Amino acid sequence: MLRTHTCGELQLSSREKEVTLCGWVQKSRDLGGMTFIDMRDRYGITQLVFNMETNAGLYNKARKIGREFVICATGIVKERSNKNLNIPTGEIEIEVKELKVLNPSDVPPFTIEEKTDGGEELRMKYRYLDLRRNPVKKNIILRYEMAREVRKYLDKKDFIEIETPVLIKSTPEGARDFVVPSRLKAGEFYALPQSPQTFKQLLMISGFDKYFQLVKCFRDEDYRADRQPEFTQIDCEMSFVERDDILKTFEGLAKHLFKKIRDFDYTGAFPRLSYSEAIEKYGTDKPDTRFGMLIQDITELAKGKGFKLFDSVEYIGGICVKGGAGYSRKELDTLTAFVRKPQIGATGLVYVKLNSDAVKSSVDKFFTREELDKWAANMKGENGDLLLVLAGERKKTLYALSKLRLEMGKQLDLMDKNTFTPLWVVDFPLLEWDDESQKYHAKHHPFTSAIKDDFHLFKTDPGKIRANAYDLVINGVEIGGGSIRIHDKQEQAEMFRLLGFSHEEAEKQFGFLMNAFRYGAPPHGGIAFGFDRWVTLFGGSNSIRDYIAFPKNTAGRDVMIDTPSALSDEQLGELSLKVVNK
Amino acid sequence: MLRTHTCGELQLSSREKEVTLCGWVQKSRDLGGMTFIDMRDRYGITQLVFNMETNAGLYNKARKIGREFVICATGIVKERSNKNLNIPTGEIEIEVKELKVLNPSDVPPFTIEEKTDGGEELRMKYRYLDLRRNPVKKNIILRYEMAREVRKYLDKKDFIEIETPVLIKSTPEGARDFVVPSRLKAGEFYALPQSPQTFKQLLMISGFDKYFQLVKCFRDEDYRADRQPEFTQIDCEMSFVERDDILKTFEGLAKHLFKKIRDFDYTGAFPRLSYSEAIEKYGTDKPDTRFGMLIQDITELAKGKGFKLFDSVEYIGGICVKGGAGYSRKELDTLTAFVRKPQIGATGLVYVKLNSDAVKSSVDKFFTREELDKWAANMKGENGDLLLVLAGERKKTLYALSKLRLEMGKQLDLMDKNTFTPLWVVDFPLLEWDDESQKYHAKHHPFTSAIKDDFHLFKTDPGKIRANAYDLVINGVEIGGGSIRIHDKQEQAEMFRLLGFSHEEAEKQFGFLMNAFRYGAPPHGGIAFGFDRWVTLFGGSNSIRDYIAFPKNTAGRDVMIDTPSALSDEQLGELSLKVVNK
Repeated sequence: MLRTHTCGELQLSSREKEVTLCGWVQKSRDLGGMTFIDMRDRYGITQLVFNMETNAGLYNKARKIGREFVICATGIVKERSNKNLNIPTGEIEIEVKELKVLNPSDVPPFTIEEKTDGGEELRMKYRYLDLRRNPVKKNIILRYEMAREVRKYLDKKDFIEIETPVLIKSTPEGARDFVVPSRLKAGEFYALPQSPQTFKQLLMISGFDKYFQLVKCFRDEDYRADRQPEFTQIDCEMSFVERDDILKTFEGLAKHLFKKIRDFDYTGAFPRLSYSEAIEKYGTDKPDTRFGMLIQDITELAKGKGFKLFDSVEYIGGICVKGGAGYSRKELDTLTAFVRKPQIGATGLVYVKLNSDAVKSSVDKFFTREELDKWAANMKGENGDLLLVLAGERKKTLYALSKLRLEMGKQLDLMDKNTFTPLWVVDFPLLEWDDESQKYHAKHHPFTSAIKDDFHLFKTDPGKIRANAYDLVINGVEIGGGSIRIHDKQEQAEMFRLLGFSHEEAEKQFGFLMNAFRYGAPPHGGIAFGFDRWVTLFGGSNSIRDYIAFPKNTAGRDVMIDTPSALSDEQLGELSLKVVNK
Repeated sequence: MLRTHTCGELQLSSREKEVTLCGWVQKSRDLGGMTFIDMRDRYGITQLVFNMETNAGLYNKARKIGREFVICATGIVKERSNKNLNIPTGEIEIEVKELKVLNPSDVPPFTIEEKTDGGEELRMKYRYLDLRRNPVKKNIILRYEMAREVRKYLDKKDFIEIETPVLIKSTPEGARDFVVPSRLKAGEFYALPQSPQTFKQLLMISGFDKYFQLVKCFRDEDYRADRQPEFTQIDCEMSFVERDDILKTFEGLAKHLFKKIRDFDYTGAFPRLSYSEAIEKYGTDKPDTRFGMLIQDITELAKGKGFKLFDSVEYIGGICVKGGAGYSRKELDTLTAFVRKPQIGATGLVYVKLNSDAVKSSVDKFFTREELDKWAANMKGENGDLLLVLAGERKKTLYALSKLRLEMGKQLDLMDKNTFTPLWVVDFPLLEWDDESQKYHAKHHPFTSAIKDDFHLFKTDPGKIRANAYDLVINGVEIGGGSIRIHDKQEQAEMFRLLGFSHEEAEKQFGFLMNAFRYGAPPHGGIAFGFDRWVTLFGGSNSIRDYIAFPKNTAGRDVMIDTPSALSDEQLGELSLKVVNK
C-alpha cells in the first residue's frame, strides 16, 4: 500500500508516529513561512504542515500544489496548537518530511465543497468530480449500507438471493420494455425486465420458498424528474404464506432499516389503512401521516343550502388548518391560485376563519353562522382554526384536497424529515376500468389474487373486487407494494378473461407461467421495494438521482459518457436493422 | 404461515408434538392398509403416514394424491419403527390428522429425482421443475452462499458495493456489445456493459478507494458450451495500491471462500508463476497444478541427430508419465489420434517406454539408447515411466503438449475435484501482435499499465513489454484477472497510439475517461472474477449452466420463456427501426 493510514483515522494517540497518507488536496493556506494543506480521502481530512524554516525546499514544493492534486505525504504526527474539534482528526497535523505528487490536476470546473458552485448539468457531466463532494459521497455510502442491511436481515430470515435473467421476453402489457436485438437470430429481440415478477413466481413453483434479489429493472417511459430508465428493486417472494405473514416479515425489514440506518426505534405494529379509507381521509393511496389534518366529508351539511356552486356537485370536503385563522387575504389568494393550477384541478377554494368573536368566510352570504358552526364541529375546527373547503366530482376533489393538505403541511412545517410514519395500505381494488380501451386493467398486475370474500363479485361486479394487495407507504412515499398471487390455473385464466385477453394472447405471453401452474404451484405472495426511493427517503432528499452513482438525466441521457449514441452501419448491419423515419 | 415447521427440521425431540407441514409429494407407497408419503420442501423430506384402520377417509384421500401435488398436512410427530438414518428427519414420521391439497399436479415431464430421466432440452424447457431436483437446488444455494461470503469478506475489508449503470455506451473495441435502441432519441442506442471497467476507474478518480460489485455483464459472442450471453462478475478496484497489495487482498478472498464454502484450509501464499514460465512448463497460461508432469524442452538433445521430422522443427518437448511404461500399443495409438485432432493440432506422437531391461520407443531407428537415456534424464524419467514427445512450431507444440498433459492427468486420475491448487500467473505480455490487422492489440485491455522496468521498450520493442497484470488460476481454470491501471494521461495516450487509435478515435470512445485523468487520478488497480465459473469450480461441475437459475442454451436462447422473439410492428415503429435482410 502506498499509505500507512487513511486521512480519517489519526488522533492524538498516534503522536510522534511516522505515517504516510495519500489523498487529494482539499485546500491549502499560506501563512507567512508556514503552508497548511488539507488532504482529503474517502475517510476524512488531515492537515499537513510545511515549515519554511525547517525545510525550505519542501515548503516551496508544497506552495505550488493546487486543489485536487493527488499527493502522498510522509511525516510525523504532531499535536495541533489550533485544534478543530469538528472533525475526528482535528487535534493533530502531519509535519511533512517527504512529499510526492502522484498526479497533478487541472482546476476543476466547479468547487469540490459541501455546497458547490456547479449547476446540475455541469456536475452530471463531471460526475466523477461531483462524487468527491462530501454530501454526494455520503449518499453513495448510505446506499451501500442500506443494501448491506437489507441482505443481512433477509439472510437471517432464511431468504436466499437468486439472480434472474436480464435478457428476457417482451410483453406488450404494462409499461414499455427496452429491447435488445438478437444478432444470431435476425429480426428477434430480447427485452430487459421491468421486474422479475414471473421469474420469482417460477422460483416459488421450484420450491425456493423465500427468495429475494436486489435487482436492476428497466422501464422505457417518458421521463419525469423522479424516474430513471434503470432503477433498483428489492424484490421478494415467499411461499406457504398469507397476507399477514408477508406484512409481518417486511415490517421487520423496515424496522431493521429504521434502526440500523436512521437509529430510529419504531415500536408496535405499523398501522393498516384500507385503500378506501386512505382515499376518504387523505385523498390519496399514499398518505403522509406525519401530521393529521384529515379530510372531512361535509357534503351532507353543505349541499342543498342554496349555494349554487355546491348544490350541483357530487362531493364537498375540507381540511381544518389548526391555528390558521390568521391567514391574510393575500395568503388565501395564493392558496386559491394553488388549488386552481391545472395539475391540481380545483375550480375554487372556500375558506372559513374560526374566531371566537366572528366566523369569517368566503361564503358568508350563503351560509348562516349556525351552518358554518356545524361544518366546524364536523371538521373538529376550534377557535383560531381555518377551514379550507373544495367541492366537485368526488375523485378529483379528494385528489385536490390531498395536494392542498400536503401544501399546508409544508407551509406549517409539519413534515419533519427525521420522523418516519410508515403504514400499510391494503385492500386495493383488483381492477381499474379504463374508459379509453373500454376494458378492465389490473391495478397491480395480472397475477394478483382477489380477497376470498369478494370471489362472488367476479361474475356480477368485477370493479368492486378487492385485491389481496398491499403497499408500504412511509411519509407519503410509496416505498413498496405487493400481493398474494394467484396460484390456481383456473383463477388465473378467469383473471386473464376479465382483462380481455383471448386464450391465445394469454397463452402466447404467459404460456410458460400458465403451464408451470399445472405442476404444483404453492400458495405464494411477495413484495417489491423501490430501493432508490427508499434510500432517497432515508437520505432526506427529494431526488433519486442524488443517490445513484451515475444517473441519467430527465431525458434518459448519460451526459458524462454521452449516451445513447449512434451505431456504426456495420453494427446495424450485423443486427439486420435499419433506422427509419429519422 | 400455513406451516409450523419445514420438512427438514423435525427430530425425535419433537415427539408427540402437533405440527403442520407444507410441501410437494416426492413419492408415496401403499403397504396394505398403510400409506406413506414423502413430503419435500426446500429444507428436506419428512414422512407422512396414513393408517386405514384409524382413519379410513383420510387414508383413501392420501392414496389418491400423486407425485408433485402440493399438500398441507397436520398431525402428530411419532418415532418411526423403520428408521432412515441417512436423512436428518429419518427417525420420525407424522401421523396425519388433517390433509389439504393446496394444488394438484399433472405428471411432470421428467422425474424429480437426484438422477432424472429428462434430457437437457426438456429440463431447460421446464427449468422450474428441474430446479426442484436436489442437485440443481444445491447448486443455486451454493451460488447464494458464495455471493454472501464474497460480500462479507469485502465489507470487512472496507470495500463498498456501488452499482454502475447497465445502459451505457457502445465501444467497437473488444467483443461485440448487445445494444438497446433508444425510443426518445430515434436512431441512437445504449449498449449493455461487457464489464464496468471504465466506471470503476472513474469511481477511483472519485475517491472511493475500495469498490466492488457483483454485477451482470453481457457479451454478444458466438456461443460456446461454457459461455452465456449474460454472466456475473465479482468486479473490484482499489486505489493507492501496487500489484502485491491487490494479490494479497484477493488471495485473502479466495482463502475465505475455500474455508467457508469448501471447508478447505489453504496455508501459505499462493504460488506465482510468470506468463513465460507457465507457457514453458505447462504450455498454457492457466495451468492445472494439481499434478506435476511438467513439460520439458528437449530440442537441444533431440534435434540434429538425423531424424528428419525433428531436424526441421523449432521446438521438441515432452512430458514424463510416471509408471506409464505399460501402456499398450492400442493405448498409444489412441493417444496419437488424440494429439492429431484438429483442435490439438500435432502431427504425430513419439513415445519412449523406460524399462530396466530395454528402452522401447517409436524412434528406435533414429536414436541410440544413450541418446534416449539423455532424454529420460532430462525429463526425470525413471524405470517404468513413459515419455511422450511432440515436435513442431514452439507455440503450437506447447499448446498440444498442454492438452496432452491434461488428458494424461485425467486418464491417471490426478485431478481430484476436492483439491484446490490456486496460483497467480503474472507478467503477461502487454500487447499481442495481430497478423490480420497488422496491429498490436491489448492482451488485457487498453487501460493496463506496463511494468516500470519495461518502459524503455515502448519505443524500441513494444511486443516485449510486460504488463502489470495478473490472473488467478485454480485447477486450470482462469477464475479472475486484473491489472494495475494506467493513471497518467500521457501514458494512456501512448498506449492508445500503440494500439493504433487516432487521437480522434481515442477521444470519441474514451474521451470522458481521458478527461477524468486530467483532474487528479490516483494510482489504482483491480481485478474481476468470473463468478459463474468460480461457483462451477467449487460445485465440482464442468458446466456453468448448472449454476444459473435460468440459463440460456448454447444458441443464446431461453427455451423456457421462448426468447428472443419477434416484436410487433408497433413496437418496432416506436423505436424507428426496421428489420432487414431477414
